[in-house]
Amino acid sequence: MALLRLIRKRVKTFSRSEVRLGIGDDCALLRPRKGEELALTTDLSIAGRHFWLATHPPESIGHRAVARGLSDLAAMGARPVAAFVSLAVPRALAGEWTQRFYDGLLELANTHKATLAGGDLSEAPIPLADIVLVGSVAAGKALLRSGARAGEVLYVTGTLGGSAAGLALLAESAEPVGEAAWPPRTAGGFSTAGSVAPPALHLYPQPRIAQGLWLRRRGVATAAIDISDGLSTDLAHLCAESGVAAEIEAGLLPIHPGATLEQALNGGEDYELLFTAAEAVRVPKAIAGVAVTRIGRILRRGGKRATITLKTAEGSRRLEAAGWQSFA
Amino acid sequence: MALLRLIRKRVKTFSRSEVRLGIGDDCALLRPRKGEELALTTDLSIAGRHFWLATHPPESIGHRAVARGLSDLAAMGARPVAAFVSLAVPRALAGEWTQRFYDGLLELANTHKATLAGGDLSEAPIPLADIVLVGSVAAGKALLRSGARAGEVLYVTGTLGGSAAGLALLAESAEPVGEAAWPPRTAGGFSTAGSVAPPALHLYPQPRIAQGLWLRRRGVATAAIDISDGLSTDLAHLCAESGVAAEIEAGLLPIHPGATLEQALNGGEDYELLFTAAEAVRVPKAIAGVAVTRIGRILRRGGKRATITLKTAEGSRRLEAAGWQSFA
Repeated sequence: MALLRLIRKRVKTFSRSEVRLGIGDDCALLRPRKGEELALTTDLSIAGRHFWLATHPPESIGHRAVARGLSDLAAMGARPVAAFVSLAVPRALAGEWTQRFYDGLLELANTHKATLAGGDLSEAPIPLADIVLVGSVAAGKALLRSGARAGEVLYVTGTLGGSAAGLALLAESAEPVGEAAWPPRTAGGFSTAGSVAPPALHLYPQPRIAQGLWLRRRGVATAAIDISDGLSTDLAHLCAESGVAAEIEAGLLPIHPGATLEQALNGGEDYELLFTAAEAVRVPKAIAGVAVTRIGRILRRGGKRATITLKTAEGSRRLEAAGWQSFA
Repeated sequence: MALLRLIRKRVKTFSRSEVRLGIGDDCALLRPRKGEELALTTDLSIAGRHFWLATHPPESIGHRAVARGLSDLAAMGARPVAAFVSLAVPRALAGEWTQRFYDGLLELANTHKATLAGGDLSEAPIPLADIVLVGSVAAGKALLRSGARAGEVLYVTGTLGGSAAGLALLAESAEPVGEAAWPPRTAGGFSTAGSVAPPALHLYPQPRIAQGLWLRRRGVATAAIDISDGLSTDLAHLCAESGVAAEIEAGLLPIHPGATLEQALNGGEDYELLFTAAEAVRVPKAIAGVAVTRIGRILRRGGKRATITLKTAEGSRRLEAAGWQSFA
């Protein structure tokens, strides 16, 4: 198919020693470097659930799909190697829309040296994509969700709530269209260049690859997860896998200008890293240009204690996981 | 989510040395054995395109999704290691239907020792799945589409057209329902047990893992591809990647009883292996219990010659790729 040939022509291969064979055969072939293992993550992006044609330009949808996977690699402290994209679109989107989707996708993948090594293409009544990201990490050294211990300190990179605030602004300004119709009359009026306005944060989030690599290589973090579903939900995941509880202080949260506490706690799609470190370990104020903020600590799980406690000026309360859910 | 916990409990890990970390973290961690590399393939299955709720029981949809990926591994001569499933369904299918989808999926994955190591779950207006299969193969030794040379002989495993004939029978007997409605009033009346009736062939195809491994390990095949899109289309892919032409004889094709020549040439979803071998190499009549049939030969590409020529009792004609297309 002409579209696939066009995409294949635009692909850059960054590491031929690791991506032995890319697009064009029944499978891609990947070979980790000596002493490394491969980290693999998959993420669905579906119109009406993860994005809307009225609010998200196609470049943003491609960018965000890859950003979700890269952010998972960042949370393991892995270096990106390859990406695979299964895309399905209505026939009306099979031309310009799809090319612009790949523009956004390839720009972010190229920035992080992830080679587009395969995928699938199909027709569907609404656009959707499933993305696979493969990274490489020193064998046995990946940052896990399960490594947090009572007494450790909780940190977060960047700011929280900006993505949710940006989506709210975009939704206000967009005219609704169906998820198979495109283009909408508005949308696409925001640029990535140098901006950290909430709409740009939402449309073009930057995965924290450099920060994840730094934390793993320096041996600073004991556990890590990326904030894709929202702080309350992702911290609950980290606590569940580590068998611990946690306490966070509302006054310490790096809430993005224009965002609410609610958006910072439950908004999701910030793609920042949440990590733990021992009390005695020195954690810098910024890593590779991105701020790092202490937001709370890890507690022993047990008794009647809530898994997550939120401390505010008015006192302490149980914080329920109230971020993204698979079914709305 | 309760559904994800349930699935996670049912997963078997077959090789802890290769699947270092499965479901539960931001990424899975995979480590190939010494001297091996990883083969990776992704395949979309979408209601209304790849299956229909009226004709396909949920177990069949899960089985077929995994079979597509396993068949790609078979075509490379790779041994299955891990599977990842991104599933999206309407809310009404999030209970019994989804569990039965995983029943079919896990049964076939377990048969071939592929550990379910991750995935994603979301709501969508119609059911769809994207499957990733990861296999392992001796480094530099995978069977490729690009290895065929003029003068070699073309072979196919099993029979052709049975899947298309089976789908035609299923479609006749099914009452149409929408792709978000389930259960249909009919459907699901076919079993896999010992049957090779066309409907069972279509609903529960068996990927040729053992045959692919045999061909690679014995060094018999020079090139291979699986027949997922239909013989005419997949042979065209093999010819394109190898830079050759081919000639097949209609009278030699192992057409499944009840299938037509048209279904054997263009039907798709047979999940047999199409491979080439040097004229002098002895190829057995069957591999691991599955018949192997000589169907034609590889020619030099060039001049006015068609890429694929079909020889019949009436003479020779150009065979166009007329199998599965991404857009109907």
